Amino acid sequence: MNTELYNKGLKLLNELHGGHSGEALVNAANDICPDFATMVIEWSFGTILSRKGTDIKTRELAIIASCVTLGNAMPQLKAHIEAALNLGVSKEEIVEIILQTALYAGFAAVTNAFAVAKEVFNNRGK
Amino acid sequence: MNTELYNKGLKLLNELHGGHSGEALVNAANDICPDFATMVIEWSFGTILSRKGTDIKTRELAIIASCVTLGNAMPQLKAHIEAALNLGVSKEEIVEIILQTALYAGFAAVTNAFAVAKEVFNNRGK
Amino acid sequence: MNTELYNKGLKLLNELHGGHSGEALVNAANDICPDFATMVIEWSFGTILSRKGTDIKTRELAIIASCVTLGNAMPQLKAHIEAALNLGVSKEEIVEIILQTALYAGFAAVTNAFAVAKEVFNNRGK
Amino acid sequence: MNTELYNKGLKLLNELHGGHSGEALVNAANDICPDFATMVIEWSFGTILSRKGTDIKTRELAIIASCVTLGNAMPQLKAHIEAALNLGVSKEEIVEIILQTALYAGFAAVTNAFAVAKEVFNNRGK
Amino acid sequence: MNTELYNKGLKLLNELHGGHSGEALVNAANDICPDFATMVIEWSFGTILSRKGTDIKTRELAIIASCVTLGNAMPQLKAHIEAALNLGVSKEEIVEIILQTALYAGFAAVTNAFAVAKEVFNNRGK
Amino acid sequence: MNTELYNKGLKLLNELHGGHSGEALVNAANDICPDFATMVIEWSFGTILSRKGTDIKTRELAIIASCVTLGNAMPQLKAHIEAALNLGVSKEEIVEIILQTALYAGFAAVTNAFAVAKEVFNNRGK
Repeated sequence: MNTELYNKGLKLLNELHGGHSGEALVNAANDICPDFATMVIEWSFGTILSRKGTDIKTRELAIIASCVTLGNAMPQLKAHIEAALNLGVSKEEIVEIILQTALYAGFAAVTNAFAVAKEVFNNRGK
Repeated sequence: MNTELYNKGLKLLNELHGGHSGEALVNAANDICPDFATMVIEWSFGTILSRKGTDIKTRELAIIASCVTLGNAMPQLKAHIEAALNLGVSKEEIVEIILQTALYAGFAAVTNAFAVAKEVFNNRGK
Repeated sequence: MNTELYNKGLKLLNELHGGHSGEALVNAANDICPDFATMVIEWSFGTILSRKGTDIKTRELAIIASCVTLGNAMPQLKAHIEAALNLGVSKEEIVEIILQTALYAGFAAVTNAFAVAKEVFNNRGK
Repeated sequence: MNTELYNKGLKLLNELHGGHSGEALVNAANDICPDFATMVIEWSFGTILSRKGTDIKTRELAIIASCVTLGNAMPQLKAHIEAALNLGVSKEEIVEIILQTALYAGFAAVTNAFAVAKEVFNNRGK
Repeated sequence: MNTELYNKGLKLLNELHGGHSGEALVNAANDICPDFATMVIEWSFGTILSRKGTDIKTRELAIIASCVTLGNAMPQLKAHIEAALNLGVSKEEIVEIILQTALYAGFAAVTNAFAVAKEVFNNRGK
Repeated sequence: MNTELYNKGLKLLNELHGGHSGEALVNAANDICPDFATMVIEWSFGTILSRKGTDIKTRELAIIASCVTLGNAMPQLKAHIEAALNLGVSKEEIVEIILQTALYAGFAAVTNAFAVAKEVFNNRGK
């Protein structure tokens, strides 16, 4: 483990996904592959998402476009729509990014992604 | 055909992909499915890419993220990296968007996408 | 919106997917991206599905083959199996089209598609 | 090997893909995995493609829709467009089946598939 | 039907997936496409999984890697994790094979696969 | 950069892919995204491939199964077939692992993977 990357990643993870997300991720991986939580925290949050060259909002939108295109990454799509909202991205912009992939990922992928977005937006509205 | 959408789309297509792109697209589709060129121009350029809610640069970056993730859309990835450069997006930001998808689309997809980006950047450098 | 394409598409949508499908689609998109319903109705039903060159039954079978191959378009697969049945395609022919993709899309995709088909067929049987 | 299925499959393979296709397939597999040629001949041609419940033309169109959707099955897409033409399917109908997948498989997949179709059609024209 | 392949496949299926798996597979296919059960038994279990050249444990691990990569083959992933455990593969080795695909299939695919593995391991623990 | 992981990864990379592979990877990434080479070396070779719990040969076979299934990771498939051969895995076992994915990844993916394997085997034979 690289303590510096880990702490930097954990801090960003909690900022993006809510205060106990790091803890939840570690707990989920704990009884199957604890090192996987470390990889997610150090590599995804501590390294790639922390890089310069583009801002964190644009990075989250790129992840959303990628998850819509994968078509089977629904829990991840949900988490990154939440992260984008936490960063102050508007619902409208998230909707536009999903829609923008329609002619590449297909209308089925976009329809299913909109269902996920709707669920996140509705939960926020409460 | 919807003349208004078509003309609006054709104008944006030529702006993004270079002066004769619309003509080239129409010619390519001409002896196989002419209406497909119309659909690309009206739907992709005249409708979705022309929408409000996010700017055209962010839309191009979302398309790039989607094409990297598809993994088999190399001619389209090439075209949209060129479009992003034409819009003034920096090489660095394009590289970061491709890299951002690495843990979603996989390292093979990103390696192959970087090869495409390198080719585009090299051609520009000439 | 193109009123002519929209009305033509809405009529076909209701014929293929049942009397209130258009309304349901519009309602579902309403609080997330209303224009997406318009795109589905004008582009998918009003334009592509309404073209000449092959009949509507064969078009629905091609959509089924495509959805089985995508592997993550289950709600769409369900809807188009229903549409094919509404057009008078036999259960046997739908089964054969799904099976025909087995060596391209894989046995997992086909197994999961058969589960969807079975659910649709059972609901019809009631 | 099941001689009956093998001979039935080999006959259909040669009818669909041209007189020496079976021989070519066997030769290609010969120095890597000879049994794979047998599986293709017995399972694909001798079993699935030979079934009742839908006609062989519709089966070929379903394979084309599946290959367009896969996006990386270009040699197979080429072979089955040729088979469809050999069965008397019109170029127009093949174009329509490819186009029909556009909103499911995406415009990039369809653009690349049209390039394959164009090549096959041009070779035929000579 | 090839009785020899069928019986050989059925025996292996029951060994790998538990005593009544063959029966369950046949029942599931019965009212939709009975021949599909025969194909699975003869082709997958009686032919490919029964081949020489590598051992059955390595074959199951290759299937697991393939199912993780597909990303939408969850019921099949579950079944083959169970089969690997039945063959005496350790939980640790299954976890490592899933993790090994992370940089190819992506972290979303691996996260979702670990959730499936966890469920199988927990059911075993009872 | 984590020097320990980097050196460990670079050593394994050169062992698996041939003496100058590390250098080649660094050079290829150099004018596009130098950090990507570091990530590949530290994360793929220094971390995941270096883990306990299964042996390196089985890890390479899992990567091969994953690359065949992706269907568009041809340069990576080629590299890992070479790595497996370098580790002493037999051509026969590599062929069997590719074949084992046939009913999951589809026959098109396997056909195209066999073409890659054949090319690697032929180059080795020289």
